[in-house]
Amino acid sequence: MLRIRTATPGDVPVILRLVRDLAEYERAPDAVVAKEEDFLRYGFGPAPRFSVLLAEQDGKVAGFALWFFTFSTWRGKPGLYLEDLFVRPELRGRGIGKALMVELARIAVREGCGRFEWSVLDWNRPSIDFYRSLGARLMEEWVVCRLEGDALQSLAEREG
Amino acid sequence: MLRIRTATPGDVPVILRLVRDLAEYERAPDAVVAKEEDFLRYGFGPAPRFSVLLAEQDGKVAGFALWFFTFSTWRGKPGLYLEDLFVRPELRGRGIGKALMVELARIAVREGCGRFEWSVLDWNRPSIDFYRSLGARLMEEWVVCRLEGDALQSLAEREG
Repeated sequence: MLRIRTATPGDVPVILRLVRDLAEYERAPDAVVAKEEDFLRYGFGPAPRFSVLLAEQDGKVAGFALWFFTFSTWRGKPGLYLEDLFVRPELRGRGIGKALMVELARIAVREGCGRFEWSVLDWNRPSIDFYRSLGARLMEEWVVCRLEGDALQSLAEREG
Repeated sequence: MLRIRTATPGDVPVILRLVRDLAEYERAPDAVVAKEEDFLRYGFGPAPRFSVLLAEQDGKVAGFALWFFTFSTWRGKPGLYLEDLFVRPELRGRGIGKALMVELARIAVREGCGRFEWSVLDWNRPSIDFYRSLGARLMEEWVVCRLEGDALQSLAEREG
């Protein structure tokens, strides 16, 4: 039996294991430097920066979705951004990912969000096909720009 | 004289005008359906979904930056996402955009953000060059997927 539920602080160790499994799938196994205390602090503290849905198959954690609110200035409404979606490889093909996406869409509608967005790697054809089957549009005209590490520090130290 | 300051509720009318000017520049002049009450509610209510920096040149509003926090599961740290950046066309070339970006980088560092991110249209060469000059990396491997309107509603109504 499949059940989708909101994660609690006690789920942090399993969430972090799933985040690491996802990073490995995305060919960046060493990219996860996050610790359990980071997830406790930013996800379950007084001003949470994200929420997590867990999918359980027969009582065993099968996947997760981590999301947060954004804001669309054009719509004047919040948006829901899905940062991570992952289903354990051995449990794929049973509709678990779809069930997580449906639950996120319900949250988005309930919270008055104008948009539900996420990102996909351009070589990840199975995921792209899956997302299109859910009705998603690929915003191929937009490119994300990122500043981090020394580049971020260096800009912060420039003369305004 | 250039001054960067945090917006207050009284700035909402000018912010909305700048949002409309930006949409026009992005070739989507009719896309802005947001109203002043939306910006008041989501930006200046009890649980703000975004913050705004205003740039003033000689006491006159010259541009703005609207941003919110995200979360990086790999870093276990919040991120700063810049949703909108705009400088009035007649006031460009004076470092106003750069001053806004420097201030955002300072906020990101101060708030312990692992990343400072934003998006750019792939045909917007002047902006891409500007962002690269600030040290930004273009994440061209990632594509944003979006569900909105009927497609969002329809997914929310599917059987999980």
